[in-house]
Amino acid sequence: MLRRRQLLNGAGGWLGAMGALFALNKSAAQTPPQKPATAAGDVPAPSRARGKSPYRPVRVPGAKTLPYTLKNGVKEFHLIAETVKREFAPGMVVNCWGYNGSTPGPTIEAVEGDRIRILVSNQLPEKTSIHWHGLFLPNGMDGVAGLTQPHIPVGETFAYEFTLTQHGTFMYHSHSDEMLQMALGMMGFFIVHPRDPEFRPVDRDYAFMLMSWDINPGTYTPNPATMTDFNTWSMNSLVFPAIPAMVARTGERVRIRVANLSMTNHPMHLHGHRFFVTGTDGGWIADSAQWPAVTTDVPVGAIRVIEFDAALPGDWAFHCHKSHHTMGPMNHAAANMLGVRQNDVMPKVQKLLPDYMVMPMGSDGMGDMTDMAGMGMALPENTLPMMAGDGPFGSIEMGGMFTMVKIRDDQRPDDETDPGWYRHPRGSVAHPVRG
Amino acid sequence: MLRRRQLLNGAGGWLGAMGALFALNKSAAQTPPQKPATAAGDVPAPSRARGKSPYRPVRVPGAKTLPYTLKNGVKEFHLIAETVKREFAPGMVVNCWGYNGSTPGPTIEAVEGDRIRILVSNQLPEKTSIHWHGLFLPNGMDGVAGLTQPHIPVGETFAYEFTLTQHGTFMYHSHSDEMLQMALGMMGFFIVHPRDPEFRPVDRDYAFMLMSWDINPGTYTPNPATMTDFNTWSMNSLVFPAIPAMVARTGERVRIRVANLSMTNHPMHLHGHRFFVTGTDGGWIADSAQWPAVTTDVPVGAIRVIEFDAALPGDWAFHCHKSHHTMGPMNHAAANMLGVRQNDVMPKVQKLLPDYMVMPMGSDGMGDMTDMAGMGMALPENTLPMMAGDGPFGSIEMGGMFTMVKIRDDQRPDDETDPGWYRHPRGSVAHPVRG
Amino acid sequence: MLRRRQLLNGAGGWLGAMGALFALNKSAAQTPPQKPATAAGDVPAPSRARGKSPYRPVRVPGAKTLPYTLKNGVKEFHLIAETVKREFAPGMVVNCWGYNGSTPGPTIEAVEGDRIRILVSNQLPEKTSIHWHGLFLPNGMDGVAGLTQPHIPVGETFAYEFTLTQHGTFMYHSHSDEMLQMALGMMGFFIVHPRDPEFRPVDRDYAFMLMSWDINPGTYTPNPATMTDFNTWSMNSLVFPAIPAMVARTGERVRIRVANLSMTNHPMHLHGHRFFVTGTDGGWIADSAQWPAVTTDVPVGAIRVIEFDAALPGDWAFHCHKSHHTMGPMNHAAANMLGVRQNDVMPKVQKLLPDYMVMPMGSDGMGDMTDMAGMGMALPENTLPMMAGDGPFGSIEMGGMFTMVKIRDDQRPDDETDPGWYRHPRGSVAHPVRG
Repeated sequence: MLRRRQLLNGAGGWLGAMGALFALNKSAAQTPPQKPATAAGDVPAPSRARGKSPYRPVRVPGAKTLPYTLKNGVKEFHLIAETVKREFAPGMVVNCWGYNGSTPGPTIEAVEGDRIRILVSNQLPEKTSIHWHGLFLPNGMDGVAGLTQPHIPVGETFAYEFTLTQHGTFMYHSHSDEMLQMALGMMGFFIVHPRDPEFRPVDRDYAFMLMSWDINPGTYTPNPATMTDFNTWSMNSLVFPAIPAMVARTGERVRIRVANLSMTNHPMHLHGHRFFVTGTDGGWIADSAQWPAVTTDVPVGAIRVIEFDAALPGDWAFHCHKSHHTMGPMNHAAANMLGVRQNDVMPKVQKLLPDYMVMPMGSDGMGDMTDMAGMGMALPENTLPMMAGDGPFGSIEMGGMFTMVKIRDDQRPDDETDPGWYRHPRGSVAHPVRG
Repeated sequence: MLRRRQLLNGAGGWLGAMGALFALNKSAAQTPPQKPATAAGDVPAPSRARGKSPYRPVRVPGAKTLPYTLKNGVKEFHLIAETVKREFAPGMVVNCWGYNGSTPGPTIEAVEGDRIRILVSNQLPEKTSIHWHGLFLPNGMDGVAGLTQPHIPVGETFAYEFTLTQHGTFMYHSHSDEMLQMALGMMGFFIVHPRDPEFRPVDRDYAFMLMSWDINPGTYTPNPATMTDFNTWSMNSLVFPAIPAMVARTGERVRIRVANLSMTNHPMHLHGHRFFVTGTDGGWIADSAQWPAVTTDVPVGAIRVIEFDAALPGDWAFHCHKSHHTMGPMNHAAANMLGVRQNDVMPKVQKLLPDYMVMPMGSDGMGDMTDMAGMGMALPENTLPMMAGDGPFGSIEMGGMFTMVKIRDDQRPDDETDPGWYRHPRGSVAHPVRG
Repeated sequence: MLRRRQLLNGAGGWLGAMGALFALNKSAAQTPPQKPATAAGDVPAPSRARGKSPYRPVRVPGAKTLPYTLKNGVKEFHLIAETVKREFAPGMVVNCWGYNGSTPGPTIEAVEGDRIRILVSNQLPEKTSIHWHGLFLPNGMDGVAGLTQPHIPVGETFAYEFTLTQHGTFMYHSHSDEMLQMALGMMGFFIVHPRDPEFRPVDRDYAFMLMSWDINPGTYTPNPATMTDFNTWSMNSLVFPAIPAMVARTGERVRIRVANLSMTNHPMHLHGHRFFVTGTDGGWIADSAQWPAVTTDVPVGAIRVIEFDAALPGDWAFHCHKSHHTMGPMNHAAANMLGVRQNDVMPKVQKLLPDYMVMPMGSDGMGDMTDMAGMGMALPENTLPMMAGDGPFGSIEMGGMFTMVKIRDDQRPDDETDPGWYRHPRGSVAHPVRG
């Protein structure tokens, strides 16, 4: 890595106000992908502990924060575009493309006014580029391959460099063979904190990247050609019940930043609390213009920032309100068995086909299917059940884009750990009293 | 029913500030579903007449208002979850699930500050629960089966109880086997009127619940597994031309509250009038933040409240602007006959297949298909035509999510009846003058 | 044409405040469609030159402005509904329906307070009507065939007449056999300029109409029955790279008005600049209510007006952010070859099928497909490549709803011409330096 640093340091004086970019030679880039080391003298990424950082880091459940090194006043980051195996939930590993071993890629965090440099090494099987969605930058840094820069060839490194003149919630994603590369997960958050730490402060700050995938049951690789008929819906490339819950103490102010790079709107719904939509990927919405909501429809290629006061303790669902998006993989063209008395049909069928086993399922709804899955009903390889989640009162019967905000009176300020299920104050209050 | 009341009264003293819930025994719940009787001493639901109610009731065309009884200061409602046969329009009856014999279920109306109890009896073939979408309530009342309460077993009753600390437009819907139960119609409005009767008063207050269904032509039961390829689009589980028109007098202020629990956005368009979006399921939008519009895109799992002044007399269309959503059932994958001169082809086909009858349809558009339907062209059993509606000037060629606001100079304040087609002031003004 | 004018003039005295309409006789309408002549004494449409018009005309790339003649103080326009052959891009001609030889039809521009008359001659193979989307007008002028007027028969002319009492961005489109006629392109812009020329002035004012089409590769006629599985995505019925770029000088204020009459939302994203959403088809949004954004989700049947200051020179992409909508025609249900080593499979397949040629494509992504197309890979007749666009740094790999705003320091005020690719100030700045 020394060699790269020397090169960059040596080039430092040459860097103009407009930014500069580099491609390292192929042999250097072909060394195994490494996280940029935090050597002595480099400035480490801020710790998450309050008071040790000029800003409160954003928590992106399931993704890491990208470290940087400070080089002559420039914060230098390194993204490695590469194939990634991502465990969406225990029992399902997906062949994705991403950055630094992850999809979404690691979160870039910086501060308004920073000058930053991002080295992008291409370890993919094809060329790539990165667009910095929402950021003001020189045209040559915009990352639209073919239009504002050449595609980054396989095995080479490209350097983006610009000064952050704004603050807010942004994204980075591929802009080369864009449909395929985004469909496989090449995306991440780019958070620019305000220089003024008193600007709209919050106690908890979360971010989720929404994505849809078409992964045939029994297989491992998403089909990037699918436009509407997806079967897997993720938040930070995780699906319920593997999406970590958010936590907050009663009375705290919570911010959630939700980005969407799938192919359809996702109306994100919060239970028990009203929020205000306070920002987009275009910046912060003035107080006078904010809408109250319990569901915010996050458009494709856009971000919605919501804020609310954690008023009531409990386990409050936060999920996409399109009901198929809170399900595991299913066949949306399945035959409709509702109301069909299959038990009556079975003997007749078996008279013709002695070995035939009709699954008497769906006649009375699908609520019992989770029980069947629990009873060991075989699922295809690498395939999650349609409905899952063992809650304190039975199956939650969800999947996909579903998680929770766990609000507690005694939640510690820095606790990120799931504090377990909510114990209702009166114990039995959530249990029906049998007559 | 006495037994249930006694039980509830007896339990009244035990009820804490947090609310309480009950399940009545199975034998009681298995008696045929009944509307809660309005016995002597109970407070009847407010009449719709102006001045007799502390609030102006909302009109939900095609659905009833749920009555309540007052028990020690608690307004007690009773919802019975059950299978429902719903006539979407004359000629089409659908096997749905709903509440109290209807989908959408009856509208719950209450006032900010009320303490309410809602008994939910499960007469479905599978377990259920109800989520009170948008309402602030104790976590144990939130209705997410498995997470905040056990599923309500078949034949049992669950009691939700909480105090209304807000006002606005909300929903209730199933949160157990949620995808299937919502796809079959388990939803309703929950209107909380402000304590202050002068808060944003309007003269007419309507509400519509949008839903999509996949009902194969010739069948009666929606397919709950369908995600995108629906063929029936309803407002309050009715389709044009069976959706009652709204009415208003010229100069009156009209509010329409539109909720969406389907699987895609519905952009609702009003003709001839600009409205403002004044509220969501998260509450009322401040004057400073309201957008003018003639189309409001209602996201899934969300509500948009719009308000406008009925400025001009006439029959003004109000409909979803996705053109397939204002059509009756059709085959979206139909072969494209546009511009194909089928009459020329027919003799050649008949030479090969003497009995073959080519329907020379669609060569020049579909506008004549309504006439064909009118001419007695056979439709499959229980299936509506693709385009319908006999207007004053011919076929309106619509279906699905299409209705009207009928504005008249002489509309009576309490009239809910369709006042007939609009007579243009000059009689012939809407008729072309042949040259 | 004299005869029509005489008729109109003769009828002038009869015209009431409410407006009037006419159908000219069939023989007159059957004369070949003509643009209304600008005879001596008529007032020509304003030239585009600054200072010669009471308003700055809107530029609708790919569509013309509809001229008018002034008749006794009434601006008279003439739309001819007819079949249209539209070249979406070189190599693809589509059988559409539209107005005056074009889809979108010519832009109607008028000024608040104007009294206007629009003659609509029906040269289509079936009946039609026009709805004036967003405009306040007498109910008989609203254009809903069957409801507010009779369908306009083939070969006849209908006269719409009303006074413009508002200003803003509106549309006109068919409201007869609406789904089919809109699916084929029967739509156009209707811009009403404010009487006050100082109302929110801008330096550049563009408008785009978004549409989706399902045109089978190798064919020419869109399938109007398609609801979700489209394959062609257009702006003003043009697709990238044939959509003219917008131009602006650094520091100018730019307005873009985007209307959507397709079947799904289109989130329009602008690179490098934040904009504000300043208006809808319902009028102008108050300053206090405007949201900052870099992506605005344009709902179906709605308009979003955005405004921004052209801050930075360069070629800034402006496109729908649904990645399939910036692609040429493709098979969304294609088999997934990603990661499949087809070269290994080919010999085995050829042993069984000696003539079989496996196309080793998609194993490593799709980025090389544009090169293949460039290498002369055969496309079906009348079919565009999936990815196209030769930029200054290679293939832009886009299609469909993709264009640019070209911002230059020296852009001339009235220049509409594509000023070529942006030359980065430092020449090599967008080129990687090989290590």
